[in-house]
Amino acid sequence: MNPQFSATYPRRYAIIGTGALGGFYGARLQRAGFEVHYLLHRDYAHVRAHGLRIDSVDGDFVLPKVNAWAKTTDMPPCDVIIVALKTTQNHRLPELLPPLLHEHSVVLVLQNGLDVEADAAAVVGPQRVIGGLCFLCANKAGPGHICHLDYGAINLGEYAPNMPDTRLNALTADFRRANIAVDTVANLRLARWRKLLWNIPFNGLSVVLRASTAEMMADDGIRALAADLMAEVRHAAAQQACFLDASEITAMLAATARMKAYKTSMMLDYEAQRPLELDAIFARPLAVSSHMPLTHMLYRQLSFLESAPRPSKNSADLKP
Amino acid sequence: MNPQFSATYPRRYAIIGTGALGGFYGARLQRAGFEVHYLLHRDYAHVRAHGLRIDSVDGDFVLPKVNAWAKTTDMPPCDVIIVALKTTQNHRLPELLPPLLHEHSVVLVLQNGLDVEADAAAVVGPQRVIGGLCFLCANKAGPGHICHLDYGAINLGEYAPNMPDTRLNALTADFRRANIAVDTVANLRLARWRKLLWNIPFNGLSVVLRASTAEMMADDGIRALAADLMAEVRHAAAQQACFLDASEITAMLAATARMKAYKTSMMLDYEAQRPLELDAIFARPLAVSSHMPLTHMLYRQLSFLESAPRPSKNSADLKP
Repeated sequence: MNPQFSATYPRRYAIIGTGALGGFYGARLQRAGFEVHYLLHRDYAHVRAHGLRIDSVDGDFVLPKVNAWAKTTDMPPCDVIIVALKTTQNHRLPELLPPLLHEHSVVLVLQNGLDVEADAAAVVGPQRVIGGLCFLCANKAGPGHICHLDYGAINLGEYAPNMPDTRLNALTADFRRANIAVDTVANLRLARWRKLLWNIPFNGLSVVLRASTAEMMADDGIRALAADLMAEVRHAAAQQACFLDASEITAMLAATARMKAYKTSMMLDYEAQRPLELDAIFARPLAVSSHMPLTHMLYRQLSFLESAPRPSKNSADLKP
Repeated sequence: MNPQFSATYPRRYAIIGTGALGGFYGARLQRAGFEVHYLLHRDYAHVRAHGLRIDSVDGDFVLPKVNAWAKTTDMPPCDVIIVALKTTQNHRLPELLPPLLHEHSVVLVLQNGLDVEADAAAVVGPQRVIGGLCFLCANKAGPGHICHLDYGAINLGEYAPNMPDTRLNALTADFRRANIAVDTVANLRLARWRKLLWNIPFNGLSVVLRASTAEMMADDGIRALAADLMAEVRHAAAQQACFLDASEITAMLAATARMKAYKTSMMLDYEAQRPLELDAIFARPLAVSSHMPLTHMLYRQLSFLESAPRPSKNSADLKP
């Protein structure tokens, strides 16, 4: 397999999983002139008929016509295959990815969690895989209707070691042309641990406490608990030679305190009765660390709540 | 003050706090022929007019006429003053207890938590105080209407050291006459830690997980988490020279698995929008122990949930 990135321009993109995240980035790329093909499931008929509508803090826009597909076997081979499924759907990758590949296709994994690229790499080989960490606050208001509330930057990094920077540079150029802020990271695993520093406490506690980020940050005890959980994540990362400075915890807490009140993605999944991304965000870090007792406790609580009957969305509604 | 117990027979009892627990034990004592005086707050008028109704696994009964009072200053001095308030009301003891005392009155503290006798002892002196640990599953169905679901035994112990066994023997005789199973404990503090071994994990997790005992015990991860919390409590108790055998944890988990599905008292308080007994059950043990990280995490979660808006009772209803 040739890791050389296709020189064709503009590149053709596939969005595997057109939820809030996949739909948002796909629509931005399409608006910028790229050819984008969207895989949909429940919303397929609606989006095929009506396209995508993006309500965004950066300006609303509508794409009345999009390339909507129900099966990847119907889709053309693509240069960049963006995996934007929830990690709870990664068991479908062996079926979904192969029909989309040409010789130089790359797979960009825009998912949360530790080593989530491994699932795609097992299907297409590690040298095709790029990881991306998204800092996006968006949710789906209805079929084909995405609300972009805040942020949106992506950090990109090669999954396999010692890859040339050709592909990352090309992707960076594409995303910037689509008005998506991008940075590249030299150490993807370190970047994933850094994101877990936030996701483990705030995604996890938001579900257990049924609370927004602002409600959690307004409580002294929960702020202290978040810091304790972050310290565990930091030490676990160090066991994998991913060194995060203690000052990052302080800075991340301060940044979270400045955020608008919002519901975490895990809270949105919980309310929508969807499976929670517990394997990627909790089980994988716990599997490689010898001592994360608070994180383990949170994981056990979340596993229970995931399988228990959930309150209806209305009764769990949060005040902003 | 004379620690000698009154020789008058039958003894006159005061119930300070006629909720499910106080009402249940008071009614049992009254039915057995003791003179019982009940302090009530919200249900005063109803109980004064209609008495108490006990629906019990041991047989239902009604007391159409009871001595109901709204203020302790109106009540006669009593031989045994049973403190059956929630510990969250203990700040009222300095006002409530003195009017009820005669020279030989004793105060029996039937509350959950560590060193809860200290609050009564600060008012009446430690030598008047007896502690009692109740293993009762009961709740209030309405004003003056108590449902006794299961259990009901009390363990009694002297609070002050080196007291003669006269009073415990007399109380034991009274309670047994009232068909209440009683045992005495030589080490009240040890008995309180033993009860915390159950209350900390199960009261605490029931609120965080909105779950009954049976739902928690059906989940492998929560059973393991409960065992981890119990291990912390056991080690904290040992720091106070209260030695609990590790086999007690195994036995307690097995006993909990055999219980009917029921809601813990803290869960009932949570659903009824009442304050939670976090100080007595969590903050006091945490204050004397140097290392209870999981318990501390649970305490922080509960403190948050106590002050956050609570779901309505219907939406939180549990399947039995």
